[in-house]
Amino acid sequence: MGYIPSRDLVGGALRGELRAVSRLLTRAENGSAEARPALDEIFQHAGRAHIVGITGVPGSGKSTLVAKLAALIRASGRRIGIVAIDPSSPFSGGSILGDRIRMGDLAGDPGVYVRSMATRGAMGGLASGTLEAVDVLDAAGFDVVIVETVGVGQDEVDVVRATHTTVVVSAPGLGDDIQAIKAGILEIADVHVVSKCDKPDANRSIADLKSMLALGLSMAALSEGERWVVPVVATASVRDEGIADLVAAIDRHRDFLARSGEIAERRRRINERRLLRAGEEILRDEFVRQRDAKVLALLHDIDARRTSPHSAARQLLAHLNLHMSEGEPA
Amino acid sequence: MGYIPSRDLVGGALRGELRAVSRLLTRAENGSAEARPALDEIFQHAGRAHIVGITGVPGSGKSTLVAKLAALIRASGRRIGIVAIDPSSPFSGGSILGDRIRMGDLAGDPGVYVRSMATRGAMGGLASGTLEAVDVLDAAGFDVVIVETVGVGQDEVDVVRATHTTVVVSAPGLGDDIQAIKAGILEIADVHVVSKCDKPDANRSIADLKSMLALGLSMAALSEGERWVVPVVATASVRDEGIADLVAAIDRHRDFLARSGEIAERRRRINERRLLRAGEEILRDEFVRQRDAKVLALLHDIDARRTSPHSAARQLLAHLNLHMSEGEPA
Repeated sequence: MGYIPSRDLVGGALRGELRAVSRLLTRAENGSAEARPALDEIFQHAGRAHIVGITGVPGSGKSTLVAKLAALIRASGRRIGIVAIDPSSPFSGGSILGDRIRMGDLAGDPGVYVRSMATRGAMGGLASGTLEAVDVLDAAGFDVVIVETVGVGQDEVDVVRATHTTVVVSAPGLGDDIQAIKAGILEIADVHVVSKCDKPDANRSIADLKSMLALGLSMAALSEGERWVVPVVATASVRDEGIADLVAAIDRHRDFLARSGEIAERRRRINERRLLRAGEEILRDEFVRQRDAKVLALLHDIDARRTSPHSAARQLLAHLNLHMSEGEPA
Repeated sequence: MGYIPSRDLVGGALRGELRAVSRLLTRAENGSAEARPALDEIFQHAGRAHIVGITGVPGSGKSTLVAKLAALIRASGRRIGIVAIDPSSPFSGGSILGDRIRMGDLAGDPGVYVRSMATRGAMGGLASGTLEAVDVLDAAGFDVVIVETVGVGQDEVDVVRATHTTVVVSAPGLGDDIQAIKAGILEIADVHVVSKCDKPDANRSIADLKSMLALGLSMAALSEGERWVVPVVATASVRDEGIADLVAAIDRHRDFLARSGEIAERRRRINERRLLRAGEEILRDEFVRQRDAKVLALLHDIDARRTSPHSAARQLLAHLNLHMSEGEPA
């Protein structure tokens, strides 16, 4: 079968046809220029799904939890899409996380769609492609779309923040280095999970989180309106404990966003991030396109330390010809 | 004491005065616009130091190793600067890594300078500031500058790749999630370290790495010129074992870069990355500056799903007025 132009896949994707969905996801992941107008059109049809970000430090048991969570959401009759971002290697070519999830009870159910995405190449660009993949699943009619990332690194955290409900998974008894990293993502949580609560130390982890949250609340008490009190959910995936509580917490947060009107502010913030990330991506593409001309001359000046990278970048930006098509009208 | 203009600090920094160095490091870290011409000037005087990047997954014992390594390099009579990137939290305000290093035997020695830098805020920008901090230490006359980051996340890996000699630290017996992350950074190593070699499983970790490297070598054997054979160094920081081997491996790599002429290619690649990152940083600054005008109108269109983030970004870039000063002439 030949290459199907991306524009021709949009109709099928909007009707929820998984072959069209799958092809568009691949093109979103690759940042394909040919797919640009199709992904722009998809964006205009997205906006119905509840987007849930799930992140946690290595060792937090996040992948198992996501599989259990997906099964329970599915059991409530909703269709669920999952985008999992894997640290992958040019050596192994592997996609460990994705395979692990796929092997669960959910295989073969068309109401569950899992896509593992590799982290992008050397020049970055994780966020744009991932969020366009979420758009595709959203526009294809999945009711809930989960984005799972490792909770370390700017790009990974960026992706998870660009969701409606951010779940941060912790586990008892991890090492110092992990705890330090964990501290950096705790404040982005709408819902906290302490996983592996069959382990010792779980009660202390829960208590620590709650006291941290109480501190944050007392500082926030000065501002007005309905407050979201960040819940701490204890789970033990091996025993299927706490998963229903987590689904309930996620659904309550969705209802809170809608009832309080907070969803509008959340969407605005997400769009602002996406606008900036898209700008950066366009800039990277232009750098590559202009490599042979202006870029090489500037690199020569930097090599000779006649100019700094920063002032060279200003010169380059001033000379960019962005070949603007001004986007596609709706 | 009042605020000293950054330009007035350059002379002192170039003479190695630590107070001037310290102030410029803070301004590089903050991305201060006022410091821009000073940092551009600093860049033009940098280029003598051997820049060593050290990265490793959480739990690899990287921080302890860096402290031991720094002590031994210092003992060889060289002055050493360290820039450590910490995952830090708005809650804790903490800087765990930095404090741990500072507490070592090196405190009080003016030939060792350690700066802990926070990871940047929500909008990214880690790489530029960090590498400008390295420029400052380089121009101030430190012979070796070590950049230490956690080996996860695009930004963190980017920083370590922008060095002359990249050291990747592994440790035996970490969990699955960690191993998956580790796979993503193994291929950037000029020198491998297997730390904690007093632990069981160490021999297997070393053997695994070596067979992976042997695979890479046989693929590379088709190309010409002197080859760098990536060494695997076994260390046990608690027993001070292997640290001298690591210093020797790092120095051999420096000599290889100089002798083979590979250093020129390495510098060119680093400069290309820095050029791109600086461009992205300028773009971010412009987005913030134009928030009240063009950006708000575009966000409104995205909110209404009349336009996608990507096509809005193209429109915004086309309308950017970069207020170009064309950089500072040398």
